[in-house]
Amino acid sequence: MEIEHFVNKSVGEWTSMRSGHSLAFKQFEEVISDIKINLLSKQDRKVQDFLTLSGYSEGEVISPFEIEWSGTSNWEDTQAIKEQLKGNSLLIPIKHSSNSGIMLRSRGYAEANQAISEYEILPESTIVLKTVYEQTIAEERIWFVHQNVRCRSSVVKSKRMSAILQTSFASEIRKVKKQIS
Amino acid sequence: MEIEHFVNKSVGEWTSMRSGHSLAFKQFEEVISDIKINLLSKQDRKVQDFLTLSGYSEGEVISPFEIEWSGTSNWEDTQAIKEQLKGNSLLIPIKHSSNSGIMLRSRGYAEANQAISEYEILPESTIVLKTVYEQTIAEERIWFVHQNVRCRSSVVKSKRMSAILQTSFASEIRKVKKQIS
Repeated sequence: MEIEHFVNKSVGEWTSMRSGHSLAFKQFEEVISDIKINLLSKQDRKVQDFLTLSGYSEGEVISPFEIEWSGTSNWEDTQAIKEQLKGNSLLIPIKHSSNSGIMLRSRGYAEANQAISEYEILPESTIVLKTVYEQTIAEERIWFVHQNVRCRSSVVKSKRMSAILQTSFASEIRKVKKQIS
Repeated sequence: MEIEHFVNKSVGEWTSMRSGHSLAFKQFEEVISDIKINLLSKQDRKVQDFLTLSGYSEGEVISPFEIEWSGTSNWEDTQAIKEQLKGNSLLIPIKHSSNSGIMLRSRGYAEANQAISEYEILPESTIVLKTVYEQTIAEERIWFVHQNVRCRSSVVKSKRMSAILQTSFASEIRKVKKQIS
């Protein structure tokens, strides 16, 4: 599988069940989210602006897309968590080979700053994203177990201590529109 | 990585944080378990007895091992759940190639009967186990993110409807014994 197929399969609206594990404290977090994934044109103003900022050119880009999410957590409703549970990110893949490359992200996963992830698509179609942030290193894996169900895991390590801080797992279920007969 | 390395890395005592996702009902289950993984000798009586029952010969076997688990769930304390949360299973790998083979299991994962799983170890060291049960098909993935942290995901499909029934994800943390100085 190549990145454009992965993006095409991901486009749509999803309901996500996400479990977060804080390893040191053995705490579970449960989050239910709505996720929208839209394909964008390379000429889209947001894509053009972000490319200008990052110093990459349009010619290198393939299948840019946007993710919007909005969730509710079973943890306390602190402002910090609320901010994390709603947002959007622009993702711009740039291929280096048929199954690997980088992905520019207007907003990171483990930290909210913009980030560049390295991606690799394994032979059995799991995509693995590695991102080095200021304080942490994150590895995300996404794989389809059905055309309408994606699994997504993440592992966040501390850069300083190389300890695993937290892991997470999401089951994402496509919202299938009812046919009008 | 080959199966004997995977088994060797897994031997020891672990604390597991496991999240189960019931997709149809959007329900989360949280389970904390103690897990012990012991290597067994091919001459071990349990291994010999199980091989006799299954019709395989000792010569084909590599690194047989045993898993014991005991957990507590945040779900209601019904008898069915209690039984599921405590148990043990004998696992006997038989290699077909350097990175694939089968695993005889005295007790299955998705269903409690004995089972035979097919395993494959991906180039980046994730082991993928596929098991066909009477009612369901399960895919389990296990990968090390640190020598003391394993991740384990599972997806259970209904055979009849080919629908995804549930997924799960466990973060398993090795119990590191304190050094006496």
